[in-house]
Amino acid sequence: MSDTFKLKSMQWNESTLVLLDQRKIPFSSEYIECKTLDEVIDSIKKMVVRGAPAIALAGMYGISLYLINLKEKPTYSDLKSQLDKLLQSRPTAVNLKLAIERYISLVSEDVFNSNSLDYIVKETILYSNTIFKEDYSTNKSIAINGALVFEKYEKKLSILTHCNTGALATAGIGTAIGIFRELRDKGYNLIIYASETRPYHQGSRLTAWELKEEAIECFIIADSMSAWLMNDRKIDAVIVGADRITSRGDTANKIGTLSHSIIAKQFSVPFYIAASSTSFDFKIKYGSEIQIEMRSEDELTQNSFLKDENGKNYIPKGVLAPIGAKALNPSFDVTPAENITGIITEKGTISPVNEENIKKVLNISTEE
Amino acid sequence: MSDTFKLKSMQWNESTLVLLDQRKIPFSSEYIECKTLDEVIDSIKKMVVRGAPAIALAGMYGISLYLINLKEKPTYSDLKSQLDKLLQSRPTAVNLKLAIERYISLVSEDVFNSNSLDYIVKETILYSNTIFKEDYSTNKSIAINGALVFEKYEKKLSILTHCNTGALATAGIGTAIGIFRELRDKGYNLIIYASETRPYHQGSRLTAWELKEEAIECFIIADSMSAWLMNDRKIDAVIVGADRITSRGDTANKIGTLSHSIIAKQFSVPFYIAASSTSFDFKIKYGSEIQIEMRSEDELTQNSFLKDENGKNYIPKGVLAPIGAKALNPSFDVTPAENITGIITEKGTISPVNEENIKKVLNISTEE
Repeated sequence: MSDTFKLKSMQWNESTLVLLDQRKIPFSSEYIECKTLDEVIDSIKKMVVRGAPAIALAGMYGISLYLINLKEKPTYSDLKSQLDKLLQSRPTAVNLKLAIERYISLVSEDVFNSNSLDYIVKETILYSNTIFKEDYSTNKSIAINGALVFEKYEKKLSILTHCNTGALATAGIGTAIGIFRELRDKGYNLIIYASETRPYHQGSRLTAWELKEEAIECFIIADSMSAWLMNDRKIDAVIVGADRITSRGDTANKIGTLSHSIIAKQFSVPFYIAASSTSFDFKIKYGSEIQIEMRSEDELTQNSFLKDENGKNYIPKGVLAPIGAKALNPSFDVTPAENITGIITEKGTISPVNEENIKKVLNISTEE
Repeated sequence: MSDTFKLKSMQWNESTLVLLDQRKIPFSSEYIECKTLDEVIDSIKKMVVRGAPAIALAGMYGISLYLINLKEKPTYSDLKSQLDKLLQSRPTAVNLKLAIERYISLVSEDVFNSNSLDYIVKETILYSNTIFKEDYSTNKSIAINGALVFEKYEKKLSILTHCNTGALATAGIGTAIGIFRELRDKGYNLIIYASETRPYHQGSRLTAWELKEEAIECFIIADSMSAWLMNDRKIDAVIVGADRITSRGDTANKIGTLSHSIIAKQFSVPFYIAASSTSFDFKIKYGSEIQIEMRSEDELTQNSFLKDENGKNYIPKGVLAPIGAKALNPSFDVTPAENITGIITEKGTISPVNEENIKKVLNISTEE
């Protein structure tokens, strides 16, 4: 299936990063060409590109663009300050942070100083392409491991998901949505409930769209309806993605994930995270240490991505609240390990979720 | 405070029911004049008027209009079929059902058959005015009892509420919002967190607007943020309204209430219902017996009440999801008595919530 899979959130064309403008989905497939790092950073901030894995990939292509555009070799500290600026574009997800750290270990100060700009450019593009390909194959492995979780279930599954964890958020078939694709290919009859994911509607816009493209049955619900849903009908599992996972398994993900996890626990519905091992941040143990990005109040009090009834014309910015009303807009929350049944990674499923088991499944030395 | 309180969701002017069009709030205060029962029913269905107490009052004024408009006295069965039609306009809330039952006990078949149309019209209007005044004073008593709950708290309170339970939903100062008004008048420093209440935004549109008018500090949050909120800061209580309460205390209220109650329990935050005794339906014991109204998918996939950036011009209907996407839209959910710390009524606060205590506080014979 992954071979015939065509949806691409981004494409690297020598000295241009072409991004699918996710703000326009599901109404049109428009592309934005980034020729500078600043354009990439702007696209990340404005959510042209989103999803923790996709942000990391776009970001590293952005660094490639920064280097390509230089006439003279910068200082290493110049490069580091560009990397810092990039990291601040969306601080909660760890994938970008880890991609940068791995890049720095590859292009260290020594390597940088003892090689030409041309060499550094080539190494940077090569690295970006490598992590892109890795993410692609990681997706497939997560999907296969995710399908194993349901091996003993009936061939009819009802699953709740939140936000968008599909091809739009990654280089491949996605994390949680990748599992849905795999289950469908294995002959499961799926009903996916997609919570709309206020305020940015990644669920109702992006997930509903991806699943429609794949002809997987999907019902949109409001984020507030998950308790009603689990009370009203049998839900086999909740599967969501991750923006950052701590060494003990506390997981930062799109705002609303924590609520769903508490509700799932109450109704004894298994709650899974689907994420690549690059979503783990072993430098922190507790979720409370994760910096949560607060976004603009306008995303809650206004509405700027609506199309008209036919899905054709973009309509003016709409107001959802009294002028001057205040709002809080945390973009993420942290689900404690205790609420998570399992973390499905490309290296296997971690269940139960605890420090020891995480290290075991991910093959990480315990003497770190 | 209730004396200087001016906001009115409806007004009865002899042979016209004037309704504040709540779909236009917070952008403009427009009024709709209903001169027939069908116009009232249409206004209830389209949510021109909403809130369980307000629907009951508008409905009974609608029956008054039905009778006023007749040239000849109808049969009792004609009247009953109009009452049935009215009841079906929004089936979940009990207030309308009870208002109709009380009306039928007043204007019984005997009374109806042995009196003139003129007499029946006068009795019906008198009854409508009576329940209107009762709701007004009930609101004030709920507010006073609600304030007592917080007597021993510090004078600084953070409270989460859901949907709109204010003057817009009632004849008076409201139920939960009535308590906020009372607490403010008693010198409490309040921060109200209003969950926006998808898909109809009663929280961000109506509650944020009512609280702004009252200069009570309010922050809008997405419905999915209540767990984040309770994890991030100290929340003293959740207070919401009710559409129907069973004899054991199971409470139907706006979709999302059940989720908030589960999350509040997890964070040990007291969870209160503020409702008049007319919200109790002693004919049913368990919440599972309550009929939940399913509304149109369009409310989740489209958006029809947006104004432009300045809050001035109405913008065309917007699309929030792929064309043809399916959605579930239950308008209510049921919170089990076990999740409710107390039910604040005009007759006192019921806590703990159980059948015996409900009957005791509401002064209901146990031999029923």
